[in-house]
Amino acid sequence: MAITAGKPIICNAAISWEAGQPLVIEKVEVAPPQAMEVRVRIKYTSLCHTDLYFWEAKGQTPLFPRIFGHEASGIVESVGEGVTELKEGDHVLPVFTGECKECTHCKSEESNMCDLLRINTDRSVMLSDGKSRFTARGIPIHHFLGTSTFSQYTVVHVGCLAKLDPSAPLENVCVLSCGISTGLGATLNVAKPKKGSSVAIFGLGAVGLGAAEGARIAGASRIIGVDLNPSRFEEARKFGVNEFLNPKDHDKPIQEVIAEITNGGVDRSVECTGNVNAMISAFECVHDGWGVAVLVGVPNKDAVFMTKPINVLNERTLKGTFFGNYKPRTDLPSVVDMYMRKELEVEKFITHRFGFSDINKAFDLMVKGEGLRCVINMDE
Amino acid sequence: MAITAGKPIICNAAISWEAGQPLVIEKVEVAPPQAMEVRVRIKYTSLCHTDLYFWEAKGQTPLFPRIFGHEASGIVESVGEGVTELKEGDHVLPVFTGECKECTHCKSEESNMCDLLRINTDRSVMLSDGKSRFTARGIPIHHFLGTSTFSQYTVVHVGCLAKLDPSAPLENVCVLSCGISTGLGATLNVAKPKKGSSVAIFGLGAVGLGAAEGARIAGASRIIGVDLNPSRFEEARKFGVNEFLNPKDHDKPIQEVIAEITNGGVDRSVECTGNVNAMISAFECVHDGWGVAVLVGVPNKDAVFMTKPINVLNERTLKGTFFGNYKPRTDLPSVVDMYMRKELEVEKFITHRFGFSDINKAFDLMVKGEGLRCVINMDE
Ligand SMILES: NC(=O)c1ccc[n+]([C@@H]2O[C@H](COP(=O)([O-])OP(=O)(O)OC[C@H]3O[C@@H](n4cnc5c(N)ncnc54)[C@H](O)[C@@H]3O)[C@@H](O)[C@H]2O)c1
Ligand SMILES: NC(=O)c1ccc[n+]([C@@H]2O[C@H](COP(=O)([O-])OP(=O)(O)OC[C@H]3O[C@@H](n4cnc5c(N)ncnc54)[C@H](O)[C@@H]3O)[C@@H](O)[C@H]2O)c1
Ligand SMILES: [Zn+2]
Ligand SMILES: [Zn+2]
Ligand SMILES: [Zn+2]
Ligand SMILES: [Zn+2]
Repeated sequence: MAITAGKPIICNAAISWEAGQPLVIEKVEVAPPQAMEVRVRIKYTSLCHTDLYFWEAKGQTPLFPRIFGHEASGIVESVGEGVTELKEGDHVLPVFTGECKECTHCKSEESNMCDLLRINTDRSVMLSDGKSRFTARGIPIHHFLGTSTFSQYTVVHVGCLAKLDPSAPLENVCVLSCGISTGLGATLNVAKPKKGSSVAIFGLGAVGLGAAEGARIAGASRIIGVDLNPSRFEEARKFGVNEFLNPKDHDKPIQEVIAEITNGGVDRSVECTGNVNAMISAFECVHDGWGVAVLVGVPNKDAVFMTKPINVLNERTLKGTFFGNYKPRTDLPSVVDMYMRKELEVEKFITHRFGFSDINKAFDLMVKGEGLRCVINMDE
Repeated sequence: MAITAGKPIICNAAISWEAGQPLVIEKVEVAPPQAMEVRVRIKYTSLCHTDLYFWEAKGQTPLFPRIFGHEASGIVESVGEGVTELKEGDHVLPVFTGECKECTHCKSEESNMCDLLRINTDRSVMLSDGKSRFTARGIPIHHFLGTSTFSQYTVVHVGCLAKLDPSAPLENVCVLSCGISTGLGATLNVAKPKKGSSVAIFGLGAVGLGAAEGARIAGASRIIGVDLNPSRFEEARKFGVNEFLNPKDHDKPIQEVIAEITNGGVDRSVECTGNVNAMISAFECVHDGWGVAVLVGVPNKDAVFMTKPINVLNERTLKGTFFGNYKPRTDLPSVVDMYMRKELEVEKFITHRFGFSDINKAFDLMVKGEGLRCVINMDE
């Protein structure tokens, strides 16, 4: 047992004291894990747009001071009562959504939307006692997505931790705990393109490129990238995208353009933009008879998806997915395996690497829309 | 070879000379089948709403004089050049949509929307030469749906004929060539409910009851029938429907009522109304995580399907189907087998039987909404 087990740990965390203001790296006290909780030493973390949105808090509930971060890799320091699946020294990925293994969703083969541990952006305390495990400047600090990985130590519910093959390089697999797996799973688990088929990917951010990577792995022969921002096209080539369409270059709706160049529509489409018009185009651009469209992007609350029923009746399928339909504990290890077998190329998603002290620079990059993933070494 | 082969046949047909006016039974000359065509002696036919709609021609393209009818059973009298799969004496079901076996749809495992022979309500001539095979009072008579079964003999493209087990009773299986198979296949081939699951059926006409029959055969334990017309509920019990909901009896949207009584939603729903609000309810009433909604009803042209994207993102699936995803030639024989094995109960769909001379009475029943299927004996 770690000598720190059962006692508070003092370490560095990047605390967000105010919406949109630079994070402050300072000492935080991290309480020991309670029942069904695990304290994890975070080794690497990366940034995702969701961190940015809640840090900017334009529209989102402002909960400050808060420790953000939800894409990460780490090592178990100690476990709370009742935790049997993990022990000190295990390598883990914290995940923003969980798997209790007991609710109807966890018991269903098809769903990963755990009733107990499903993502909750407004919860900022631990489930067991409704309290925070972080204290700084004498006050409790809000958690984020049950993970708060911008801290050298954090406390996570055991249901939100995927156990890793210890040979998996933590500095790379950290990016697999959110957007990339979301896109990858949307293609591999939900759209399921056949070898030689055509796939349209709407939105070429990290999620869309994860989806493209899935299409490449599945052996799709035409991977058509659709984005309003042509600067995304060059990067996307590395992910198997071999045709590009910018809706701004065409007078007619992009679904009509796609139908023309594919003899009636693509076999599969995956929408990774969050824009409802892209969702509609993604649905209407699939071939009648067998086309499947998968929605991934999180839209504006007031958005309404609209289409003529005949588009559905003509044997098209519309599906939505959350976290690529992966069950975090059961399925994420297989994604890491895919990387270890060199089928999934993770390194190309990592465009920057910084030390922890430079975390605000990583926020700057993301605000400017530069690069895909910036990995932060928590010990530097 | 039949002595009539290669020559015109004179027989009785029920001709519709004017929209909404009683059919007139009179002599018609039926030309011999051309290449890839088959002349069929119709033994039994039944009536379907589609006949009624095009006969009323309120909104539909009026094409008169015309011989309606598309649910039927018959015996091959003679075949045209190039027809190798059927010969004189074979028992067949004419189908309103076809299967050429050569186009991309026919070659796809998933689609039954044949490019060549897909339903075309505005085509009223044979494909090969753009001409009618019927002449009465010296003028050509329009075909309907490539079948025109309200005639003792008709000419049908070989791709629109399913070959039957000769022991199948023609007086019953005739009802399997349209609506009932449509509903049945929507459940068995597309919604695919598991044993013990819950299924909501919207609309309890012949199509909806076919869908309910599919749910019963699949072993669904809760089959919830939804209809605005409570008079449909009594009949529906025979088809395994064991709970009923009338949207008019509730203040809140019926999808919310369904979610309440099923702990979050049904596992599957099948919409068989043609009403876009029912389509939306059918989609929104399925459980998040795994629910699948299947649309069958043919809506008004201006209808728009609308829903919040989050309903999709929460892992619901929306699918549409045409003719229950059955490929007419390849798959209909298996539906007849299901009936022969007594799994599918066809007789309960047949509420009336008339002789051909009473065909206008069958139209009256359908206008009044009485009964499900009226089978007409073409020799009486
Ligand atoms: N469902 C989940 O589990 C899950 C998980 C993570 C992220 N997401 C969502 O996935 C989406 C993508 O995330 P990301 O990090 O890759 O975002 P991103 O901003 O990096 O990329 C989105 C891309 O979409 C493009 N785009 C926007 N509107 C478009 C339109 N109408 N047509 C074509 N392209 C358009 C943008 O130019 C951009 O390149 C977001 O909505 C995010 O919230 C969902
Ligand atoms: N897709 C295909 O291949 C195919 C084939 C045949 C028929 N159809 C379509 O299937 C539908 C049903 O055909 P049918 O012959 O059974 O029709 P029907 O008129 O006998 O039955 C429809 C039922 O739906 C009910 N209904 C109408 N609006 C409703 C609502 N908002 N909520 C609940 N119930 C409602 C009606 O009361 C009626 O009982 C039609 O739209 C028809 O065009 C489709
Ligand atoms: Zn659970
Ligand atoms: Zn994320
Ligand atoms: Zn075909
Ligand atoms: Zn019909």
